[in-house]
Amino acid sequence: MTTQTAEKKREKVPMNGVDTPTLFATINAVKEQPELAKAQFRASSRWVAGTHSRSKVESFTAAGGTHTHEGDYAFDADHPKVLTGTGKGATPVEFLLHGLAGCLTAGIANIAAARGVTLTEVSSTLEGDMDLRGILGLSNEVRNGYSGITVTFDIKGDAPAEKLRQIVEQSRARSAVFDVLANGTAIDVRVNA
Amino acid sequence: MTTQTAEKKREKVPMNGVDTPTLFATINAVKEQPELAKAQFRASSRWVAGTHSRSKVESFTAAGGTHTHEGDYAFDADHPKVLTGTGKGATPVEFLLHGLAGCLTAGIANIAAARGVTLTEVSSTLEGDMDLRGILGLSNEVRNGYSGITVTFDIKGDAPAEKLRQIVEQSRARSAVFDVLANGTAIDVRVNA
Repeated sequence: MTTQTAEKKREKVPMNGVDTPTLFATINAVKEQPELAKAQFRASSRWVAGTHSRSKVESFTAAGGTHTHEGDYAFDADHPKVLTGTGKGATPVEFLLHGLAGCLTAGIANIAAARGVTLTEVSSTLEGDMDLRGILGLSNEVRNGYSGITVTFDIKGDAPAEKLRQIVEQSRARSAVFDVLANGTAIDVRVNA
Repeated sequence: MTTQTAEKKREKVPMNGVDTPTLFATINAVKEQPELAKAQFRASSRWVAGTHSRSKVESFTAAGGTHTHEGDYAFDADHPKVLTGTGKGATPVEFLLHGLAGCLTAGIANIAAARGVTLTEVSSTLEGDMDLRGILGLSNEVRNGYSGITVTFDIKGDAPAEKLRQIVEQSRARSAVFDVLANGTAIDVRVNA
């Protein structure tokens, strides 16, 4: 049996809660029909009071159509009281950390399944450092956002440490959120006033 | 009365749910003691199954100490079923949009209060476009993350349209999340395997 055949055989087995056959069928469908890859994700947000706002995430476009999320997703965001907010939600910058964790972790599960590795634990801590003089308008020497983010994964599974590290690295290399947070993207802010 | 005096007088009035006097007292305290500006925001995440993970946001360091959020903040993230996930949460990339909305909106409320403008509505829609061939590993020509994000604000208050636009622009210019999403930041991914 060649390595390639072994890979193909492994691809057909659901693993880590990942429906691996469907994952590969999806990849092949998009390969055949690249227009299926066109996606748009959306949120709508409304100011509540002070620094408190609430977003809804309802529908997205992907795989050739617009789909409504099954869950009812609404999220509050606020500044904490110690930073002169009203403390009615996690801070906006913390949601970036959550998004990064979610994207890297999903990729790890998918890639491990594709490589025939059963995972038993994936946990992570994320730390983002910031000098608040930026957002407070007190300095033009420091940036407004995170000066840096550190993500530390603990990962366990039925593969050698080196293979587990490679899975994390491959997830990083294909992560949508990592890409945006590491490299930035064009943001167009429009105003109807 | 000079313009400066008028500005100072306005600073003392809470407005839009913003405790403006405390906001300015905080800015002045950090100006006097720049070490108070050193902040770290954190999240911890745990893989659940498939592409589903859950993050907790519990404590942060700012204003010279470590503080625990008053609320119990836990967030699920998942890929939708149509993208071979399990649909147990909003997608990681959608949380970036929520974070961006929350940061810009909080800034708008603070800046409007500081400028003596009473707001009656701030709402926004956010759209992030993505070519999924990146994350699916089907193309090195497209990036993994958003090719671009469009934010559209509707804002109403007791000021001329031009002044409302300037408030949005100033929020953008001092937004931590906008900065990170537009310009990127250093991300260090470490692995204990």
